[in-house]
Amino acid sequence: MDAPAPITPRLSRQVMVGSVAVGGGAPIVVQSMTNTDTADVAATVAQVKALAEAGSELVRVTVNTAEAARAVPRIREALDRQQCPVPLVGDFHYNGHQLLADEPACAEALAKLRINPGNVGQGDKHDDRFAQLIACALRFDKPIRIGVNWGSLDQQVLARLLDANRARTTPLPLAQVIHQALVTSALESAAFAEAQGLPGDRIILSCKVSEVQDLIALYEMLAGCCDYPLHLGLTEAGIGSKGIVASSVALAVLLQQGIGDTIRVSITPEPGEPRTREVVVAQEILQTMGLRAFTPMVTSCPGCGRTTSTFFQQLATDVQHYLRTSMLGWRTVYPGVENLRVAVMGCVVNGPGESKMAHLGISLPGTGEAPVAPVFIDGKKSVTLRGERITEEFKALIEDYVRAAYGNKDKNA
Amino acid sequence: MDAPAPITPRLSRQVMVGSVAVGGGAPIVVQSMTNTDTADVAATVAQVKALAEAGSELVRVTVNTAEAARAVPRIREALDRQQCPVPLVGDFHYNGHQLLADEPACAEALAKLRINPGNVGQGDKHDDRFAQLIACALRFDKPIRIGVNWGSLDQQVLARLLDANRARTTPLPLAQVIHQALVTSALESAAFAEAQGLPGDRIILSCKVSEVQDLIALYEMLAGCCDYPLHLGLTEAGIGSKGIVASSVALAVLLQQGIGDTIRVSITPEPGEPRTREVVVAQEILQTMGLRAFTPMVTSCPGCGRTTSTFFQQLATDVQHYLRTSMLGWRTVYPGVENLRVAVMGCVVNGPGESKMAHLGISLPGTGEAPVAPVFIDGKKSVTLRGERITEEFKALIEDYVRAAYGNKDKNA
Repeated sequence: MDAPAPITPRLSRQVMVGSVAVGGGAPIVVQSMTNTDTADVAATVAQVKALAEAGSELVRVTVNTAEAARAVPRIREALDRQQCPVPLVGDFHYNGHQLLADEPACAEALAKLRINPGNVGQGDKHDDRFAQLIACALRFDKPIRIGVNWGSLDQQVLARLLDANRARTTPLPLAQVIHQALVTSALESAAFAEAQGLPGDRIILSCKVSEVQDLIALYEMLAGCCDYPLHLGLTEAGIGSKGIVASSVALAVLLQQGIGDTIRVSITPEPGEPRTREVVVAQEILQTMGLRAFTPMVTSCPGCGRTTSTFFQQLATDVQHYLRTSMLGWRTVYPGVENLRVAVMGCVVNGPGESKMAHLGISLPGTGEAPVAPVFIDGKKSVTLRGERITEEFKALIEDYVRAAYGNKDKNA
Repeated sequence: MDAPAPITPRLSRQVMVGSVAVGGGAPIVVQSMTNTDTADVAATVAQVKALAEAGSELVRVTVNTAEAARAVPRIREALDRQQCPVPLVGDFHYNGHQLLADEPACAEALAKLRINPGNVGQGDKHDDRFAQLIACALRFDKPIRIGVNWGSLDQQVLARLLDANRARTTPLPLAQVIHQALVTSALESAAFAEAQGLPGDRIILSCKVSEVQDLIALYEMLAGCCDYPLHLGLTEAGIGSKGIVASSVALAVLLQQGIGDTIRVSITPEPGEPRTREVVVAQEILQTMGLRAFTPMVTSCPGCGRTTSTFFQQLATDVQHYLRTSMLGWRTVYPGVENLRVAVMGCVVNGPGESKMAHLGISLPGTGEAPVAPVFIDGKKSVTLRGERITEEFKALIEDYVRAAYGNKDKNA
């Protein structure tokens, strides 16, 4: 019963990052970044593959040393050999101009160069090094992201705007000057790149900060100032649910306004947590907002005093896990299955009603209710499950439904 | 460097739920619901206490049986004995009129009655039972929440609006008619309650659905139609990060418009996960959006190929845990400490910059950097930590800062 997302995307140019279109009406691209040592080819290849399989459509790797730069073409080759075509983005700070000059194969293997104008060099060195980076992008026909971050904001730009602000009759609050400095750094860097000959449709911008309302205010400003595609993300979002919540709320308010052409969720992994979690969260943001569909989703109630057994929590967990793992195989065989919605409900209060609104729904017996679980398919009551094997039987019903609803599309066509 | 939240709250009347003000400019109230059997007094008291200690300012319990209704006054007494004054809300479906008539002490012990107009009874019974519930609210001087849910939408209202829609020259899409039916059910029920003599400032409304864009569309409609305070939540949000993300994105878009006077996060607990997680997520939504502050927050980067050790992830985890647990004791002694911001950063790229924007920040050495970790306090570089005891030493610096910045306020006053 989804209402359509009432979202009009901001108009932006389209930039091709390898084979992936960003902006210009393309679906919002999910991207991520490795946390392996880029010089460690095997570890990085394995993580890039895991991120791509989880749904990352671009993967960024830091290129911080000569060893890392030399590893990049070998990572690309290994990925290609393993049929993992995901475009790689190189993240450069301080020494990018030197690394790329010394290792042209690195630039060649990358699909995009991320340049942080705050970390290109100070004073006279800034323009010279920036120009070298743009020359490299031109030589190898690559797009760039101008990635500004308030943790590494260009201090010359900030000082200039602070001076100008002091000269105003009514100076603006510091937060607003910082927002202006971030946007100015991005736009002036883009203008510089274009002046060096880089076409405007090879430039993506980002201005990341770690506070939600700052991010919203400054992306609203940035979105109104240019038509470059915008890479959107809350930087340093944090760990655990705080990182997920902060990223979700910040991106939601902007995405709902049509702002954001590619997103990255910058959460700190808890020790032992897979790096792919940032990809899952990015997909969940886009999918729950109705912007894209990636994998079948489970609607399940929080449970209450009416559903005191943990069987219901376990069933919801099992069904969600089953759907996400099955999706790896389903993706190619059952086009459209990513739109499937399954409800797992704890009792009769909203169970049947919510189950009818999903493609498949199961309404479990609350405490003291008869030990039967009606299943609803496409809004109609189907079978009633009982006993020990409810989980297996419900999964089998999902499998049957998927085959019937999404299979054999080619044969029928 | 927070930008102020550019949020103008929607004007609403203020409703008192026990000692807690909802709406009318009061801070947005965090609430939650138990999942213990209400008839089990000890288990329910323990969970209500845990939810209240985590920060739930109202706690709802289902009242589904005569045993549950009889337990409610005993739960209230036990909480009072244990100095836990959190107001209790009773959740009624189907038999609320009967339970409250049979057990007046239950109504007396509750601070609010939640009535679902879709589960009051069909046909002639509906108005009669609803009137009995309102009479009980009047007798015991209690406010009510009219809690509509699309899983239990009043079918008579829906049928009437579907008929009217069919008669239109250009019928509206089904989703829109369902939104209208949800809002209509809430508003007509409120009008009915007022006609029975319940003052308008004793009524809170909610219209919950499980899809994000539906929730946004219909709360925008509801907010424009009345000045009752709104209880906001995405129902049946789901399990794991999906439930957290869906709740966060839905509430963010509405809260940013000033819509929502009290929130509940309806996530399905994973097996073994504490029920208090829904309270933590609700607080994180409000705090990251700049709407309220509850506990010191950690800004931490996602790490990348520059920070390959897991020490950084462990430190971020430890610091976040330390802050949240310390807050239990700090809350009363250090007023304002809930606004503290701590940064834990993985390398030099954004580490010093982000650390300077927090009250305290630590910038860890990236792979291959010197094994030293500068600490920044109020934007200035303070000590540099080294060696095995970085975590303990950083916690001690936080403790010192908290004591100096937030302690002894009364003595100075």
